[in-house]
Amino acid sequence: MSDNELLQGLRAIVGENGATEAPDALAPHLVDWRKRHVGVADAIVFPRTTEQVADVLRFCAAHAIRVFPQGGNTSVCGGSVPATEGRNIVLALGKMNRILDLNPRNNSMTVQAGCVLADLQEAASKVDRLFPLSLGAEGSCQIGGNIATNAGGTNVVRFGNTRDLVLGLEVVLPDGQIWNGIRTLRKNNSGYDLKNLFIGAEGTLGVVTAAALKLFPKPKSVAAALMGFETVDAAVDEGIRLQGLFPGELVGLELISRSEFEISLRHGHELRNPFPDGVPPWLVLVELASSSVGDALTAQLQDALEAAYESGACQEVVVATSDQHRNEFWRIRHNVTEANGREGMGLTHDIAVPIYTIPAFMERAAAALATHYPQATQVVVGHMGDGNLHYIAMFSHAIWAEVADKAAFQRDLSHRLYDIAAELGGTFSAEHGIGSLHVDEMRVYKNRVEIELMQKIKSLVDPQDMMNPGRVLPS
Amino acid sequence: MSDNELLQGLRAIVGENGATEAPDALAPHLVDWRKRHVGVADAIVFPRTTEQVADVLRFCAAHAIRVFPQGGNTSVCGGSVPATEGRNIVLALGKMNRILDLNPRNNSMTVQAGCVLADLQEAASKVDRLFPLSLGAEGSCQIGGNIATNAGGTNVVRFGNTRDLVLGLEVVLPDGQIWNGIRTLRKNNSGYDLKNLFIGAEGTLGVVTAAALKLFPKPKSVAAALMGFETVDAAVDEGIRLQGLFPGELVGLELISRSEFEISLRHGHELRNPFPDGVPPWLVLVELASSSVGDALTAQLQDALEAAYESGACQEVVVATSDQHRNEFWRIRHNVTEANGREGMGLTHDIAVPIYTIPAFMERAAAALATHYPQATQVVVGHMGDGNLHYIAMFSHAIWAEVADKAAFQRDLSHRLYDIAAELGGTFSAEHGIGSLHVDEMRVYKNRVEIELMQKIKSLVDPQDMMNPGRVLPS
Repeated sequence: MSDNELLQGLRAIVGENGATEAPDALAPHLVDWRKRHVGVADAIVFPRTTEQVADVLRFCAAHAIRVFPQGGNTSVCGGSVPATEGRNIVLALGKMNRILDLNPRNNSMTVQAGCVLADLQEAASKVDRLFPLSLGAEGSCQIGGNIATNAGGTNVVRFGNTRDLVLGLEVVLPDGQIWNGIRTLRKNNSGYDLKNLFIGAEGTLGVVTAAALKLFPKPKSVAAALMGFETVDAAVDEGIRLQGLFPGELVGLELISRSEFEISLRHGHELRNPFPDGVPPWLVLVELASSSVGDALTAQLQDALEAAYESGACQEVVVATSDQHRNEFWRIRHNVTEANGREGMGLTHDIAVPIYTIPAFMERAAAALATHYPQATQVVVGHMGDGNLHYIAMFSHAIWAEVADKAAFQRDLSHRLYDIAAELGGTFSAEHGIGSLHVDEMRVYKNRVEIELMQKIKSLVDPQDMMNPGRVLPS
Repeated sequence: MSDNELLQGLRAIVGENGATEAPDALAPHLVDWRKRHVGVADAIVFPRTTEQVADVLRFCAAHAIRVFPQGGNTSVCGGSVPATEGRNIVLALGKMNRILDLNPRNNSMTVQAGCVLADLQEAASKVDRLFPLSLGAEGSCQIGGNIATNAGGTNVVRFGNTRDLVLGLEVVLPDGQIWNGIRTLRKNNSGYDLKNLFIGAEGTLGVVTAAALKLFPKPKSVAAALMGFETVDAAVDEGIRLQGLFPGELVGLELISRSEFEISLRHGHELRNPFPDGVPPWLVLVELASSSVGDALTAQLQDALEAAYESGACQEVVVATSDQHRNEFWRIRHNVTEANGREGMGLTHDIAVPIYTIPAFMERAAAALATHYPQATQVVVGHMGDGNLHYIAMFSHAIWAEVADKAAFQRDLSHRLYDIAAELGGTFSAEHGIGSLHVDEMRVYKNRVEIELMQKIKSLVDPQDMMNPGRVLPS
C-alpha cells in the first residue's frame, strides 16, 4: 500500500480533515516534550467517534499498519511517540474530548479519552465534586493516557492511582471490536476483571476510548504545611505518624531533598523561600483536606506538627496561613521538573519501595552515587506516602557532554539503583510506566512467570503485534 | 488411574494425613452450608505449602483430574463445592493459615490463603490496625476465597471491595508454575495487571496461595444510628446526603426493609426492637469511624441526623449511645441470613445499580413481584452506599413446596429482576460472584465481546479446563 493509499484509506473513515501526512502537522506528534524520544509515522489520524477508532484499527489490521495511540504526549518514558522505524500511524485521541455524563448524585462522570485532565477536574468542581487525579502535566495530559499508564500523582496517598478511580471502560480491541464496559457501579462481580487488564497496558492491548470515573465530595477545607528535617529517617517516621493520625484527611505527603528545593527556587519564577535562614536537608509537604468548613483542620494540623516540633522530631514547621500561602508551597513542588531541566542533565528514576524502607534505600543509593558517580548531585522529590521516590542523579551539562556512551552510562547507573529498590521489595517503575524506555528493565526485574503470562496475553489480544509494538513487553 | 492410585499420588505429595477419600471426611466439603449445592469428588487434599499446591496441580494436569479449590465453603452461588460429575478432587486451603508478615509501619500484612477472615481482623487489631473487610461469614470464610470472589461486605462504601485491599498475590497456575507477585507497594506500573486478573476469577485461572493485604489505622471512635423513612426515595436521598457530609468517616450505609427488619427480630435471639411503637417502612443503618478520640464523632452524627429529622427527611432517628447499643443494631443486621432461612424460602438476588436509581429499581421490582408473584413477600437488605441490594422474594415453605419446576420458577423470577437492574445500568451479581449458580446469567447479561475475551483468557491460562470447570464462564 502506498503512502497515498494509506492516507486515502484513513480519510475515507475520518473525513478529509481527520488525517494527514503533512510533515509540519506530524512533527509535534513524533517527539516527546522533553525531546528525548523521536519516532516516525506515515500519517496521523484524529478520530471523532469510537466507531471511527474501530474502523481505523480494522483498516490498519488489514494492511499491516502499526498503530501508536497518543493522548497529550506527556510520557516521560517514550510511551507516547511512535517507534523509530516501520509502517506506523499515530492515532491521536484529542478530538474525542466530550464529557458524556456528569452525575454528582452518583459521584460519577463518563468522559471520552481525549479530555484534558484539568478540564475534568474543573467540570467536577463546578458540580461541587472532586476528581482527585492530580499531576504535573494535568494541563495537557489526556485522561485516556492517564488510564493507559495508570497515572499516579500527588493525591494517591488518599485516593489511589488512576486504576482506583475508574469505574468502567470502553475499549476498541486491535481487531476493531468495541468492548462497551462503561458502567458506574461500585460492585460488579460478574466474571474476569477486563477493566484492569487494559488500565496500565499502555495501549498495547487496544485503545481506551471512554471511561466512567469516580468523583468525590469536594473538600470544604484544606490545610498544608512544610516541615524541615535533619535526616530522611526522621522525615519518614513523621510521615508514618501523620498517616496514622489523619487517615481520612491526608491527601498529600511529599518528600523533597534540599538540593531539589534549592534547584526549584533557583529556576523558579517569583518563588519565595519559606526558609530564609537556610533550607533544611529534607522537606516534607503535607496536605490535609476535610468535608468540614472552617479553620478546624488547620488547627488540628498545627497541633499535630507543634507536637512533632516540640518532641524534636522535626526542626522546622511552616503551616500555611492562607490558600495563597499553601499554593506557594505547591508551586515550589510543581516547578521541579522544569527547574531540573534547566539545572542540568537529570537522570530520573521512578522507583517505589515499602515506605518504611525509604531510609535504607536512600542510604544505599547515596553510597552508590558517591562511589561510582561522584560528579552527580543527588536530587530527590517524591510521593513519600506511597513509597514512590523520583530519585535523580543530576549532572552538569558540561560533564554530561563528556559522557561517551550515554545509553550505557545511564543503564549502568539506573540498574545500580533499581537493584537496590528490588532488594527492598521495590519496583523500577512506580507511576511513569514502561513505554519504550524501560522494556529492558522488564526483562531484568520481572520474573519469568509473569513476563511469559503477559506475553501470552499480548499475543492473545493483539496477535499481529500492531498496537504500540515495542512498548511495555520485551519480545 | 484408579481411585487408589489417585490417593497414593496425592499422598506422595502431601503426606499420609494430607489427603483422604473417606466418605465421612469428604462429606462436609461436598455440600454448601445452605445445602443447596452438592458435588462429587474422589478425594480431598490439604496442602500445607505453596510447593505442595504446585505439585498437586501438576499431578492433576498429568492425569486429567479436575481441581476444585475450597476455602471456608461459604459461597452462596455454589462456587465452593465440586461439580456434580466427573473425576474431581477438592483442594482445601485451610491448613495454609499462617500470617507470614505483619507490618504496622507499612500498613500491610502478608498471609496464606487459608487464614480465616476474623483471625486476620484480630491480628491487625492487635497491632492497632484495621483490616476492613467485614462480612457475615467472617468467622469461617478464608481470605483466599474472599480474594477469589472479590468479596464485598459492609465496609465497601469506605474501603472498597477485596480487590482494593490486595497489594500483591501468590498464585499457582494450572500447570503448576508459581507466580510470586507478593509485593507491598502502593504503586507499581510495570506491565499488565495480573493481580486483578486472578482476583474475582473464582479459582478458574489458578489457586491463590498467599496475599499481601492493606491495613489502615484503627479507628479511635465509632458512631452509629438507625434512621427510619416512609419511602425508599427518602432513604436514598438521605444516604447520598450523608456520603457528601462524611466522605472520610462513613464506613457503613445499610438499607433494610421493614419486612426484613421484622423477620430478623422474629427469629433473632435476644434482639431488642429499637422501634417499639412500630418499625418504619425503611431503615438505614449508618456508621461513621474516625481517627479522633472522644465523643465528637457521635455529636457530629447527632447534629447531621437531627437536621434530617427536623427537615422531615426522616421520621425516626436512634443514635447509638454506647458500643453495646451500636452492636445491637448490627446484630439485627447480621442476623438476616439466618433469620430468612427460618422464615421461609427466600430467593435472593445480589443486584447492584447506580445508587440514585435504587428508587426506580424498587418501584419496578415491587410491581413485577405484585403482578407475577403475589404470594411472595418483598424483603430487602443491602449495602445502599454501594448501590448493592440483596432483593429477596420470600415464599412460605408451604407455597414453595407446591412449586412444580423450582428451577424454572426461580429462573423466571430472577430474570425479571435482573432485566430491571440491567436496564438501569446495573448487574445481576454485585458481590457474591458467579459460582455455578449464575453461569447462565453470564450468557444472558454480559455482552459477546467480553464473554469471548474471558473465554479466551480462560483457554490461555487453563487449556485443559481443569480448574473449577463449569464455574464463572459459559462454555
